[in-house]
Amino acid sequence: MKKAYSELSREELLSLREKLGREFVRYKGQNIHLDMSRGKPSIAQLNLSMGMMDVFHSESDLKCEDGTDCRNYGVIDGIPEAKRLLASIAEVPPANIMIFGNSSLNVMYDTIARAYSLGIMGNPPWCRQGRVKFLCPSPGYDRHFKITEEFGIEMITIPMTPVGPDMDMVEEYVNNDPQVKGIWCVPKYSNPQGYSYSDETVRRFAALTPAANDFRIFWDNAYSVHHLYEDRRDTILEILDECEKAGHPHIVYKFTSTSKISFPGSGVSAIATSLANLADIQKRVSVQTIGHDKLNQLRHVRFFRDRYGVEAQMRRHADILRPKFEMVIGSLEEELGGLGIGEWTKPLGGYFISFESLPGCAKAIVGKAAEAGVKMTPAGATFPYGIDPNDTNIRIAPSYPPIDELRTATKIFALCVKMVSIDKLLES
Amino acid sequence: MKKAYSELSREELLSLREKLGREFVRYKGQNIHLDMSRGKPSIAQLNLSMGMMDVFHSESDLKCEDGTDCRNYGVIDGIPEAKRLLASIAEVPPANIMIFGNSSLNVMYDTIARAYSLGIMGNPPWCRQGRVKFLCPSPGYDRHFKITEEFGIEMITIPMTPVGPDMDMVEEYVNNDPQVKGIWCVPKYSNPQGYSYSDETVRRFAALTPAANDFRIFWDNAYSVHHLYEDRRDTILEILDECEKAGHPHIVYKFTSTSKISFPGSGVSAIATSLANLADIQKRVSVQTIGHDKLNQLRHVRFFRDRYGVEAQMRRHADILRPKFEMVIGSLEEELGGLGIGEWTKPLGGYFISFESLPGCAKAIVGKAAEAGVKMTPAGATFPYGIDPNDTNIRIAPSYPPIDELRTATKIFALCVKMVSIDKLLES
Repeated sequence: MKKAYSELSREELLSLREKLGREFVRYKGQNIHLDMSRGKPSIAQLNLSMGMMDVFHSESDLKCEDGTDCRNYGVIDGIPEAKRLLASIAEVPPANIMIFGNSSLNVMYDTIARAYSLGIMGNPPWCRQGRVKFLCPSPGYDRHFKITEEFGIEMITIPMTPVGPDMDMVEEYVNNDPQVKGIWCVPKYSNPQGYSYSDETVRRFAALTPAANDFRIFWDNAYSVHHLYEDRRDTILEILDECEKAGHPHIVYKFTSTSKISFPGSGVSAIATSLANLADIQKRVSVQTIGHDKLNQLRHVRFFRDRYGVEAQMRRHADILRPKFEMVIGSLEEELGGLGIGEWTKPLGGYFISFESLPGCAKAIVGKAAEAGVKMTPAGATFPYGIDPNDTNIRIAPSYPPIDELRTATKIFALCVKMVSIDKLLES
Repeated sequence: MKKAYSELSREELLSLREKLGREFVRYKGQNIHLDMSRGKPSIAQLNLSMGMMDVFHSESDLKCEDGTDCRNYGVIDGIPEAKRLLASIAEVPPANIMIFGNSSLNVMYDTIARAYSLGIMGNPPWCRQGRVKFLCPSPGYDRHFKITEEFGIEMITIPMTPVGPDMDMVEEYVNNDPQVKGIWCVPKYSNPQGYSYSDETVRRFAALTPAANDFRIFWDNAYSVHHLYEDRRDTILEILDECEKAGHPHIVYKFTSTSKISFPGSGVSAIATSLANLADIQKRVSVQTIGHDKLNQLRHVRFFRDRYGVEAQMRRHADILRPKFEMVIGSLEEELGGLGIGEWTKPLGGYFISFESLPGCAKAIVGKAAEAGVKMTPAGATFPYGIDPNDTNIRIAPSYPPIDELRTATKIFALCVKMVSIDKLLES
């Protein structure tokens, strides 16, 4: 059993610090360049979808099932078979789906942008409603927060728990403050903690009675089929269904995409929502574009065929990702377990592990790691305005590097945690 | 030499009207469904690009020339070789290009949307500047006008001439009214007239001294390489270059795409503008998305290679389009020449022929054609708010139907012109 750092004497800490410092210098000398900053699939994962490059050739029939020539203009909401495929991923009826372009982030941005300048379902645009607000369960996804920040929307931090956001706070804000227009959610294998919302959390979302008519839950179901294990999977209640049952069918926009199923940047994205919301969105989007890339929609359907094809693909992704997650978690346990200087999550899916350092250490750890050539997501990025009030949260993205590099990167990271933690303990 | 309808007696008109009416009834009985409403490439044109489906296969190297794996996230501004290709189409240096997704209309919409909610280069957002205005050379492109209408931007009609918009009016508005924020332009083979701006027109655009810092020319170069003839081509001065020379490098956004070069809906689009504008745009767009579809960018480059590949392809497009334009123009000449009830343009490129009826007849002609099963662009659509003050302009889109169908459609259209014109003459 290792001794917690807090129980070490000043002399022990100083001596350990010196030893760790020498180790750090050795790593620095190796001219390392490793990246654990972004949730990018690895090359091996990208290779899984190369068969998609063979599904079309110059003699292919590029009509979709209703006879539409996918090569030409038109079809604002997506071809029927793509709707079915994305609906199966999003766990909603195909009628509730609208297909978009290559990026669900872009769809979320545009949804905020439309609400801001044009308004939701006949309500005044947010830009004419004074200072509007968004709830931001944190730690959360930095790119979500950047969007609301861009539009000058006031962001309110809601603490995350292992079963979802603090719902007492969510209800308090949403049900009473008409300036609160939305909340960012990654309900399954959340970014960065890998937490999944409990049934009670989902039901409390569905039961919200927003003070604002134009309040919407932004339900980013980015990791719906992104399990690491066959036998241990998080499942969450389907939010559209729950909202319908609760009598609030219009309060949620659900987003999904194939970015981490096929190719990031060349996938297909979608919104799932009530028919009234869809009609509102389609009316607006038909001014924005004549249609999204139907050939890419058809390419995805011809390659994956259906939900079973997607699930088979996700098992292959899991086979590549699982050893990386296990290695990082095992290595953190080995290096830091029992030292009392950090905690980390052990997710069953998604793309991230979340690390909690001693208060006031996250920025310094990330800076130290960068010094040794290991790039992490900037500390603070997982909170609104990039400010983590306790400076404790660090997002670890194990997906991209090959496992050997990841092992080195994790060792260096753990070393930096130790050094910065000792410095902090010596300060006090 | 045919006699003009205005010179016919009332009796002659009545008898002719009856004869034409019988002909119309015969057409109606044929249960015809023809579409001359949208500028869509024909199936034969789409087939020209089917080779693009063979350029990638499951063993392909999908790295672009700088080593970036095009299958993964990243690259906000486009891969270098795609920039070069689109720059060659847009006739600008690659440094001035940013690549977007599948639709230049979407890029224009987003450009307006950003200006409206976030502002251009540090200027206040248009939504905070009271009633802002846009100049709309008309007849023009209906989808342009729909965008500015959507954002509540006041649209001011500027008359079109065969050498471009009425530049006296443009200068008067732009140089004096700080609420005028932009102008829609299709400078080459304009939609719908097929007019191209003269050198003087382009130079007067470049020499504008806008009262508003955030005024921009929206230069939609949709038909830059879309010539019908080898030996007779419109050429226009390059606007970025002219603006630079005139000392106003930032006043123009130029838009282009491969929609009518490869596949509509599955092409690649771009903005060309000054470096300062590009930096402003990229900063904003990097909040909206992680990147556009790089695989599709690479697919286009591997298929077309360069400007020469594009030009060869455009000659093949022209071989399909030219006979259709010539047939429609010839048929209009044969049916309506000398009757004094309409005029039409004879463009050397682009996708449209513009028809001018007697005052107050356009809506009735389009309605009549619809009755017989021939769908035209709604009359009025070529003007802001869908209102053609003289009710004379009709856009003819000859590209999509096979030539036999187009012949019938044109005959029916000409018949409707005759009938409605006689009705109008009889009224007065």
